[in-house]
Amino acid sequence: MANKILIFGGTVVNDDQMLRADVLVEDGKITAIDPGLASMLSVNTDGQMKTVDARGRLVMPGGIDPHTHMQLPFMGTVAVDDFYHGTKAALAGGTTMIIDFAIPNKQQTPLEAYHLWRNWADPKVCCDYGLSMAITSWNERVKEEMEALVRPDYGINSFKFFLAYEGVFMVNDKEFYQGLKQCARLKALARVHAENGSIIAEKQKELLTSGLTGPEGHTQSRPEELEAEATNRACTIAEQANCPLYVVHVMTKGAAKAIEKYRRRGLVVFGEPIAAGLAADGRHYYSENYDEAASFVLSPPLSRDPSTPEALMDLLACGQLQLTATDNCTFTCEQKRMGVGNFTKIPNGVNGVEDRMSVVWEKGVCTGKLDPMRFVAVTSSTAAKIFNIYPRKGRVAVGSDADIVIWNPNRTRTISAKTHHQAVDQNIFEGMEVRGVPEVTISRGRIVWEEGTLRVQAGAGKFVPLLPDAPVVFGAHAQKEEFCQPKFVKRI
Amino acid sequence: MANKILIFGGTVVNDDQMLRADVLVEDGKITAIDPGLASMLSVNTDGQMKTVDARGRLVMPGGIDPHTHMQLPFMGTVAVDDFYHGTKAALAGGTTMIIDFAIPNKQQTPLEAYHLWRNWADPKVCCDYGLSMAITSWNERVKEEMEALVRPDYGINSFKFFLAYEGVFMVNDKEFYQGLKQCARLKALARVHAENGSIIAEKQKELLTSGLTGPEGHTQSRPEELEAEATNRACTIAEQANCPLYVVHVMTKGAAKAIEKYRRRGLVVFGEPIAAGLAADGRHYYSENYDEAASFVLSPPLSRDPSTPEALMDLLACGQLQLTATDNCTFTCEQKRMGVGNFTKIPNGVNGVEDRMSVVWEKGVCTGKLDPMRFVAVTSSTAAKIFNIYPRKGRVAVGSDADIVIWNPNRTRTISAKTHHQAVDQNIFEGMEVRGVPEVTISRGRIVWEEGTLRVQAGAGKFVPLLPDAPVVFGAHAQKEEFCQPKFVKRI
Amino acid sequence: MANKILIFGGTVVNDDQMLRADVLVEDGKITAIDPGLASMLSVNTDGQMKTVDARGRLVMPGGIDPHTHMQLPFMGTVAVDDFYHGTKAALAGGTTMIIDFAIPNKQQTPLEAYHLWRNWADPKVCCDYGLSMAITSWNERVKEEMEALVRPDYGINSFKFFLAYEGVFMVNDKEFYQGLKQCARLKALARVHAENGSIIAEKQKELLTSGLTGPEGHTQSRPEELEAEATNRACTIAEQANCPLYVVHVMTKGAAKAIEKYRRRGLVVFGEPIAAGLAADGRHYYSENYDEAASFVLSPPLSRDPSTPEALMDLLACGQLQLTATDNCTFTCEQKRMGVGNFTKIPNGVNGVEDRMSVVWEKGVCTGKLDPMRFVAVTSSTAAKIFNIYPRKGRVAVGSDADIVIWNPNRTRTISAKTHHQAVDQNIFEGMEVRGVPEVTISRGRIVWEEGTLRVQAGAGKFVPLLPDAPVVFGAHAQKEEFCQPKFVKRI
Amino acid sequence: MANKILIFGGTVVNDDQMLRADVLVEDGKITAIDPGLASMLSVNTDGQMKTVDARGRLVMPGGIDPHTHMQLPFMGTVAVDDFYHGTKAALAGGTTMIIDFAIPNKQQTPLEAYHLWRNWADPKVCCDYGLSMAITSWNERVKEEMEALVRPDYGINSFKFFLAYEGVFMVNDKEFYQGLKQCARLKALARVHAENGSIIAEKQKELLTSGLTGPEGHTQSRPEELEAEATNRACTIAEQANCPLYVVHVMTKGAAKAIEKYRRRGLVVFGEPIAAGLAADGRHYYSENYDEAASFVLSPPLSRDPSTPEALMDLLACGQLQLTATDNCTFTCEQKRMGVGNFTKIPNGVNGVEDRMSVVWEKGVCTGKLDPMRFVAVTSSTAAKIFNIYPRKGRVAVGSDADIVIWNPNRTRTISAKTHHQAVDQNIFEGMEVRGVPEVTISRGRIVWEEGTLRVQAGAGKFVPLLPDAPVVFGAHAQKEEFCQPKFVKRI
Repeated sequence: MANKILIFGGTVVNDDQMLRADVLVEDGKITAIDPGLASMLSVNTDGQMKTVDARGRLVMPGGIDPHTHMQLPFMGTVAVDDFYHGTKAALAGGTTMIIDFAIPNKQQTPLEAYHLWRNWADPKVCCDYGLSMAITSWNERVKEEMEALVRPDYGINSFKFFLAYEGVFMVNDKEFYQGLKQCARLKALARVHAENGSIIAEKQKELLTSGLTGPEGHTQSRPEELEAEATNRACTIAEQANCPLYVVHVMTKGAAKAIEKYRRRGLVVFGEPIAAGLAADGRHYYSENYDEAASFVLSPPLSRDPSTPEALMDLLACGQLQLTATDNCTFTCEQKRMGVGNFTKIPNGVNGVEDRMSVVWEKGVCTGKLDPMRFVAVTSSTAAKIFNIYPRKGRVAVGSDADIVIWNPNRTRTISAKTHHQAVDQNIFEGMEVRGVPEVTISRGRIVWEEGTLRVQAGAGKFVPLLPDAPVVFGAHAQKEEFCQPKFVKRI
Repeated sequence: MANKILIFGGTVVNDDQMLRADVLVEDGKITAIDPGLASMLSVNTDGQMKTVDARGRLVMPGGIDPHTHMQLPFMGTVAVDDFYHGTKAALAGGTTMIIDFAIPNKQQTPLEAYHLWRNWADPKVCCDYGLSMAITSWNERVKEEMEALVRPDYGINSFKFFLAYEGVFMVNDKEFYQGLKQCARLKALARVHAENGSIIAEKQKELLTSGLTGPEGHTQSRPEELEAEATNRACTIAEQANCPLYVVHVMTKGAAKAIEKYRRRGLVVFGEPIAAGLAADGRHYYSENYDEAASFVLSPPLSRDPSTPEALMDLLACGQLQLTATDNCTFTCEQKRMGVGNFTKIPNGVNGVEDRMSVVWEKGVCTGKLDPMRFVAVTSSTAAKIFNIYPRKGRVAVGSDADIVIWNPNRTRTISAKTHHQAVDQNIFEGMEVRGVPEVTISRGRIVWEEGTLRVQAGAGKFVPLLPDAPVVFGAHAQKEEFCQPKFVKRI
Repeated sequence: MANKILIFGGTVVNDDQMLRADVLVEDGKITAIDPGLASMLSVNTDGQMKTVDARGRLVMPGGIDPHTHMQLPFMGTVAVDDFYHGTKAALAGGTTMIIDFAIPNKQQTPLEAYHLWRNWADPKVCCDYGLSMAITSWNERVKEEMEALVRPDYGINSFKFFLAYEGVFMVNDKEFYQGLKQCARLKALARVHAENGSIIAEKQKELLTSGLTGPEGHTQSRPEELEAEATNRACTIAEQANCPLYVVHVMTKGAAKAIEKYRRRGLVVFGEPIAAGLAADGRHYYSENYDEAASFVLSPPLSRDPSTPEALMDLLACGQLQLTATDNCTFTCEQKRMGVGNFTKIPNGVNGVEDRMSVVWEKGVCTGKLDPMRFVAVTSSTAAKIFNIYPRKGRVAVGSDADIVIWNPNRTRTISAKTHHQAVDQNIFEGMEVRGVPEVTISRGRIVWEEGTLRVQAGAGKFVPLLPDAPVVFGAHAQKEEFCQPKFVKRI
Repeated sequence: MANKILIFGGTVVNDDQMLRADVLVEDGKITAIDPGLASMLSVNTDGQMKTVDARGRLVMPGGIDPHTHMQLPFMGTVAVDDFYHGTKAALAGGTTMIIDFAIPNKQQTPLEAYHLWRNWADPKVCCDYGLSMAITSWNERVKEEMEALVRPDYGINSFKFFLAYEGVFMVNDKEFYQGLKQCARLKALARVHAENGSIIAEKQKELLTSGLTGPEGHTQSRPEELEAEATNRACTIAEQANCPLYVVHVMTKGAAKAIEKYRRRGLVVFGEPIAAGLAADGRHYYSENYDEAASFVLSPPLSRDPSTPEALMDLLACGQLQLTATDNCTFTCEQKRMGVGNFTKIPNGVNGVEDRMSVVWEKGVCTGKLDPMRFVAVTSSTAAKIFNIYPRKGRVAVGSDADIVIWNPNRTRTISAKTHHQAVDQNIFEGMEVRGVPEVTISRGRIVWEEGTLRVQAGAGKFVPLLPDAPVVFGAHAQKEEFCQPKFVKRI
């Protein structure tokens, strides 16, 4: 059978152990893992089994990027990496699944957005994908459609709320609280973009009025304290709603500290730093070169404190942050120029989906902060657990999907827009030398990346329905509900 | 002259030193302080100098209560302690000045409220008073009237914003930010009631819907995390507005922690715990007795953590909280019964103006946390500095107003509504035995409280205009503005 | 074959997932896990396969207690639970492996202690066990014997240092630092008992001199701040020695906070709360009843803050503490009376090995803090990872040792010395009702506990050699050493 | 009379207020302060009153430097600034009093050291001075001499303990605890040099062994975590001894954090950053130039974190650090070369006594962190209060010593060894431009520094006896002892 692959001689790395073993892939699934597999199989092999020499390599679950925005219509334009280019690049970087966001605009309902995104993605994706739904307005219909969307036929198990982008996506505290209560009821995960949008809007006006219109206005209009404040507020409100929370793109120490505080109090809260935040900082916003400065514009902005990336990695290492994503949302140099003369019009977003794995390896593993098991956890397994697809995804185990990356920890490569596989014409990691190279990527049991060559096909990936009530999110709550007192306490 | 008083044999306590000295008062002012004054004067004294024997006593500046609500129209009724009863009781407790709040309702402008309050207070006050203005709506007219009010003829140097009481007094983040900017411009102090009013409104609905209508609903609808959240947010926004901040009624550790965090970052921020919060905790809300439970209803509610009062006192001791007030706003048992069947209708407020000094002495000094100098600081001097009337008030010094309390640290008394001098018929400190008794109170150079007897007169107190730009509030900023770079930074 | 067991109908719980599946045990190993196993096997079963009905039950890895002191010679007597009674009781509670401490006295070398302990344990243990070695003096010979002991034939991969018990076990900072460096070199885990022994010795003298001789002197001579101080110091020194650290018996918030701080800085440090600390607090030390008070005497003492147990559980929940143990070291009521008239002579130690699993379930899972996966992590899997025996132990997986507990989350039992299986005649959890009951325990593939009946045999357990360089302990460091700069930096 | 000085037109700044007023000095004392003094006196003035034009200037209490080491015999040499040069330079910088340390070596008793230092200082000092006594060994005699030294005829009210300098000055935890108890009994202030001397000794050996012998070894042998650790330990032990504590030279955020923690718990603890730590950081240790690197060598070393100085200033601003000193202990370039080839032999110490006031003004006031009142507090008044000489020193008040500095906030000067008045030939602030210039210094009622000219006389300064039981140190405790329960609690 042509659908067999034998990966031999490597070290299988999962989030809980490392093991010298061979791995057999058949028909899209992992069917055997054993140190002696290769020697055993070699006798019986006809020429139809593809073999991959993994000696000196690590055999890890393919990356899962739980936060992307492929071909997002945003700020008057559309993100240039669509579901085809974006997922193709992901595979070249060792990532085998993305979770993208359907974001209804003011005229759309969640269900409408859902179908729109499915129609965009299904024919184009080169790897598996799931969807998360943004809740950008609040009314009874939205509430009902949330309930519909968590059914298995839709496969949505998370909803995202924006505390920023006033007038566009932002919900107020009351709407957010009600949204969280609905999430808790549906056992769906609530995700939040945490910045204080009201004060940002004021700052933007002040800056423009004062004549400061360049990209450096972006970072000055969004001081990192406003991210910390909103993160703290989001956690407070989630605790009041008795609802787990997932904070997307944790960019600053202050935001991370708020998450830590609430984790220590017993709130189930996850913090997601992104590749950009782990490997770049906000000094570029002051570059004389508009294009360079604008290329780093995303929200929340990169921290202006150069010690932030290392601090975020330390928190990933010790477990106070849980997983990494990218917020990949790319605009070309040309698109970014929409904001010349008015920084509030620069399309927000940066790349990452292709380079995340390398960047986390370089900044996390090579610095002695993460061991390879923790690397697997923060790039893949934890996402799989949180989004309730583990161990089908996120683990090299018998019965799991054959989404695998063969990692060479001893090679280096230099990141560049010239050589990357994304559609966008710039790369915020330009020139960064990274140790750790994905040499082979296997998606759904097929080798899609090998020897620097991609063999992908639009539509080869599948939509993965995500089901509610993930044990790692709601498992503790479940126990409590069976045994504990009702929430409100009456005087005797 | 009848207007001379000689206080002899006592220990003068100011916030920076303690000194065995006699004190001479003439025509409302302190005119001499000297260890040998009594022996020197005794020769020359005709019968017209009143003498006060302060041997074994402490001679301290009279208390300043920077947060009262006398005869406040609120929640459909009016606070029962008016400017007469309230200030009379203050004097009996050793407090010689209050700062009350003028609070415009939705139909009033700040200037209208100002005149209303002056008209109420002037004929009634038995001791000196000042006013702070609440900003309960936001528009150009409000902004302009703020500017008028800081002029010496009006004498307002502080403005208060509510982040709670949705639909009544509450301002949103944007209005608060603009109000803070106006305060900074006028060099007026911004004060804030910090609770998340939106979530409180939701909690109230939930509780009432669930059938929980008793006073215990008050505390459950206002979890202390919502105070901590709003305090953190208020500090964040004040930092963005580059405006000093004064947080009224800090009731919980979480709120205090937020203040500490911002103080450490360089924000000028003051935290004011109140007598109730330093000596009572929120377990009473679960009393079977409605009247008892309701008598403790104020907002934010008393902390449900019994270790909170001690923790707040520790923070006063080490300087992370700065001064004490009362939020005195009293309603009778009968008035409190307006909330039978619906806790949201219980008029909010408790007593304190009479007992604050004793309560802080008992819980602060007798426990070894505060020395007597720090006691003077947190009950009087710091308020005088922040509200820019130091050393006229808040210090026993030559040239200062003769607002003095003679304190006996070796006597005890038992607090009770039966014996207190407030109009309200209940006392949240009922039965508490306190060491430290104000034996004599001198206001404006006259003995108004002695041997348990009050000799006060309505209207004897005067309005004290409070001027902007207090050095302790704006003194550091002033330096910065002369030398530092402009706030927004342009790329080269 | 008599050595087959089929566990059917249960939910298999590992630290990363929960799964409805049947489990097959053969010859001491787990050989199959599959939802359809029972139906498949039922056809083929001859009468020789034992079946266990696990419907409605959880099938979990047996507990690992990484901190016990069976039959320890200590303070002039010997702990009453020996390796037989102690391990028997462990099995009755669902724990299938212990790690005990060999502790050389001043006349013994580590190797001598090793052999002594092996000779004591091997003939008696009813379940598998490993050893950790205490380093109670410091010289070249000790250093060399440490190197010998980490060889596979000895099987020691951890060393424990005492910063308390002055004059008995205590090492000073310099010895501790050198010991840590030796651990780092050998890739062995350093463990520490963190209390400031010097100040404790002073406090003991003061108390006895003042005439306070009862058990309440125990807690007053060991203020919890001295545990926090020593924990902070131990972490600081470990960081300087570039050595991972494992803090045994974390009893207080302060100690846990120190661990958190260092984890956030990148130190690999593990914190181990114990059953006693998670379910009891130190108010018993003031019991009028000497026997009751003395029964709780262990070091560090139980926290005097009643909110501590819950706080420690919260930290286990969020990952800032990592695993649970017991410090099981039991003395009879009679033995405890050695300290009548002098609390420093009360033999230190409490029970726990039998009840830990139930206590953690009750206080952790039933309160909604831990989900069942996290329960498995903190009672078993994490210990297996840290002591480098994972996934042989600590996981229900094909190929793992058949050390399994069948847990009924819906039953309750009441803990009592009358019914427990330990040799000691008192139980610090006396009268506690716990939800969650181990109904069947399987050790090395044999059912040793079922229907309330033990079927154990002295010596049936085996010594499990523990090998150095556990990936979860040294895995991150390993990466760093390959790539990073040397430690000391020279000027150019 | 020639002994009269009229300072007119200035703004008098004390730690609690700022006031436009003239100041009259007569016979070494301040005899009048009044806005109208100049106009009133001008009529009566004969030519014998010296006048100082202070228009546009601030009239502040002269600085008090509570931590100097003039002509200290140390590390085989003697500090080059003796009591003459050191105090002369102090006056040129606006400092009018120092508190130096008598440090007995192993052959001396405290009393012997006391006399030695008095004999050195009395004939040389140009300004007033006091002494603090180091306790470098522990026995009954030392304990008795401490008791003698606190008598008024000796005038010692503080004792310093070293937790570093192993084998030279260091005391162990037990000795430190007993010393603290003696201090508490005598109501003398305990001061501590907090670094972990044992681990430093190990690090020094490691570095030298590894061949790293240059000045960069100094900082690497004393990681700042060892200062934080020892500070935390010192506070813990002080709390156990029930003794206030004063931490000298707080150099790092970690040490400051430990102090904060204990202040919040109610311990009376003071933290003293020094000029060097507020204006320089430790990057110089890596200078290629030995002389430059060595010139910065002091212990604890300057922080390697460039954000530390600003953070320390923020803590001074918000009150979590209390006062500034210098640890002035100077060695020439030549003396510093004793450590060529072995960094442990570089004499430890830097300058500061002359430049402290300017440096704190520049980094504290000009940055908007301190207002001028807080500047006075941290450079003068707080020291006077802690060392129990307030308001004789540390305040511009009638009756206070005429130790005054006339400060021009609008001038700048550039610090340089070429122009400074110290004996040492290097200056760690070399080239720093500072705003704020002391134009006139008055010591004991005489103008000693004016128009860049010193008019000093060796021996003109006097020894100021410092008496125990300072209210700001022991005032809170005193209250407690009268009322509170005994420390140890017996079971009923």
